[in-house]
Amino acid sequence: MPNISKRTAQLPASPIRKLTPLAQAAEAAGKVIYHLNIGQPDIPTPRSFMDGVKTADITVLSYSPSRGMPATLNALHDYYAEHKIEVSTDEMCVTIGGSEAFTFAMKAATDPGDDILAPEPFYPNYRGYAYLTNIRINPITTYAEDGFHLPSLAVMEEKITPRTRAILFSNPGNPTGVVYTHDELERIAELAIKHDLFVISDEVYREFVYAGKAVSVFDFPELRDHAILVDSISKRISACGARIGVIASHNSAVMGAVNRMAQARLSPPTFGQLGLTAFLNDPHHHDAIATMIAKFHARRDTLYAALQTIPGIVCQQPAGAFYVIAKLPIDDCERFARFLLTDFDHHGETVMVAPGTGFYATPGKGKDEVRIAYVLEEEKLVRAVELLRAGIAAYQRTMAPSPA
Amino acid sequence: MPNISKRTAQLPASPIRKLTPLAQAAEAAGKVIYHLNIGQPDIPTPRSFMDGVKTADITVLSYSPSRGMPATLNALHDYYAEHKIEVSTDEMCVTIGGSEAFTFAMKAATDPGDDILAPEPFYPNYRGYAYLTNIRINPITTYAEDGFHLPSLAVMEEKITPRTRAILFSNPGNPTGVVYTHDELERIAELAIKHDLFVISDEVYREFVYAGKAVSVFDFPELRDHAILVDSISKRISACGARIGVIASHNSAVMGAVNRMAQARLSPPTFGQLGLTAFLNDPHHHDAIATMIAKFHARRDTLYAALQTIPGIVCQQPAGAFYVIAKLPIDDCERFARFLLTDFDHHGETVMVAPGTGFYATPGKGKDEVRIAYVLEEEKLVRAVELLRAGIAAYQRTMAPSPA
Repeated sequence: MPNISKRTAQLPASPIRKLTPLAQAAEAAGKVIYHLNIGQPDIPTPRSFMDGVKTADITVLSYSPSRGMPATLNALHDYYAEHKIEVSTDEMCVTIGGSEAFTFAMKAATDPGDDILAPEPFYPNYRGYAYLTNIRINPITTYAEDGFHLPSLAVMEEKITPRTRAILFSNPGNPTGVVYTHDELERIAELAIKHDLFVISDEVYREFVYAGKAVSVFDFPELRDHAILVDSISKRISACGARIGVIASHNSAVMGAVNRMAQARLSPPTFGQLGLTAFLNDPHHHDAIATMIAKFHARRDTLYAALQTIPGIVCQQPAGAFYVIAKLPIDDCERFARFLLTDFDHHGETVMVAPGTGFYATPGKGKDEVRIAYVLEEEKLVRAVELLRAGIAAYQRTMAPSPA
Repeated sequence: MPNISKRTAQLPASPIRKLTPLAQAAEAAGKVIYHLNIGQPDIPTPRSFMDGVKTADITVLSYSPSRGMPATLNALHDYYAEHKIEVSTDEMCVTIGGSEAFTFAMKAATDPGDDILAPEPFYPNYRGYAYLTNIRINPITTYAEDGFHLPSLAVMEEKITPRTRAILFSNPGNPTGVVYTHDELERIAELAIKHDLFVISDEVYREFVYAGKAVSVFDFPELRDHAILVDSISKRISACGARIGVIASHNSAVMGAVNRMAQARLSPPTFGQLGLTAFLNDPHHHDAIATMIAKFHARRDTLYAALQTIPGIVCQQPAGAFYVIAKLPIDDCERFARFLLTDFDHHGETVMVAPGTGFYATPGKGKDEVRIAYVLEEEKLVRAVELLRAGIAAYQRTMAPSPA
């Protein structure tokens, strides 16, 4: 009997995935769970998107061009121009979700055995993409107390190895909610230019900013050859199932590699491209996005105010995306998350959170942290935080007493 | 300025892709091109598939489960059962086209530096998937004179190295049209069991058989732990743009690795799954496939008869898929294919073929071969072969005389 590869035998499953069977069992037993663990928006997908799919005049559902349909690329060009991001249709490729864009970016930037810097906590799927690309995530730790802003240039430079090829980050940040300042991105630019690194900027939460405006990696002319932008429509227009993302770069060698990889997998899905094109060509598409952002803004305010009622919590008000990483008075977030599902019950209700450890590459980091996603209606968020507060108190009674 | 990776810098573009700009220039200049080079079916996508997409009741287009929607997995289970392929829903995963299924199969079976056997000529994208997986295709040469059937066990065994982990083939065969006999698959089974190899069987042309029935890798109980089935709906129901494929295995370690890889890329596209589910749940779906196969059968007969009129051609009648590899009296198929587009013109018309070299891993092989896809109406196939015959005669006048 042949053995499977070491590569895939060791591919880690995410800590959230490990909790899923426990949540299913609790729900099957009648417990009501408030899901603060999920990054799946609850916002209806815009009608113009769905109409673009449903009214499509298709006789043969053929392969689309590998780089994407011309109409989709043109619509994306106009969308980026509205955001003052100058990128030609030749400098972008439609991908199968942001997932494929990350994979393409990593493969274009690295060879097996290389590493890429990433501020931690980071989006846990980075780890899977890196693992399957045979590279290592080289973490730069950031802290709840600093609102997860970046450390100094010198601290970041300490992490560089002879095999470091890129720096990867999401901005606005999943899971931290941080929005990097112009100064922070200048620090990244300085690091990248000094050490010949690609800058892979995950900007899928571009519009999810509750004060000011997100800075794009494409705002830095000095990063022309370094910048690789990763994007996705999943969150922005609540179309996760469409599997449509974008990778863009002004570096023609990068885009040449991307286009060859895109040819190797033939094409991105046609229906998602049709929906996106119809949405972006609808003159009211800004309103749909703005209405959604206003809803998340209100949820952010409600959630943050509620979290302040938890004794001992450490978190700063998140400026973007729809997540917050909170440091809690607990000893082990994975045990705590399990406890909430299996041992805690407040009038038949509980809450599910994502353990912080899943967002770190450094062993032991994030043990007293959880990620909370605010993709619930406000009154449910308030109730969920009440349950979280009660859950912490109940959990603390199970914790071993601290050594005196 | 950072350099892109060696991995992607060296990723080969396909020989067909290199011809595309020449074809576009010829068409822009008014030349009519009969495309024998394309594997894109011209058959309308079934109405039930499109209705399944267009009538979907979706409020939030959320991620589907990573392994596919339960309704889709159930419909696939029933489809396989109709084909006497016993596979449970836990033993399959919906993939993003056949492309992703190949990538998952290779990654589950191999580590970087390993090799996998593949009878050549083979589907050229195998090379891209292997390249990006950091493994090597280890070719077993087959011959036009033998109808591209497999050599003896001993000949196949000679190719095995200490790093050989699997054998990969398509059956029915792209680009050869070969359909392996039960004896041939038994030979593969013997090889796999003796040398602990995975058997990756690409069965995307399952129904495209014009005599008898294709044998599935799942027909061999002794391959229970070795067999990995790769499938796609692209050709079978003319839905290339849906990007829906399947990977299946009875080996739970393989499926565990596949499921972790599937989680890492979140989910396959929702709309394609909805269309496929509706198509398979339509009780008339067999008729739609049978009607299409009858059309390809007639085309196969017409094409093969026409090809026999070409002096010096070597090819056996293809038994399956919708391709034939023909050996022609030419010295250099890449030069010949270019010549047809740039230097040949018969009453304003020409023909485009896929150079044979693109289907081989062994350098120099396939230089006098071309792949012809019969995805045109019959009268157009007849005209295309007339043009091919005239093109060969014209090309031969440009060839250097053979040494006496």
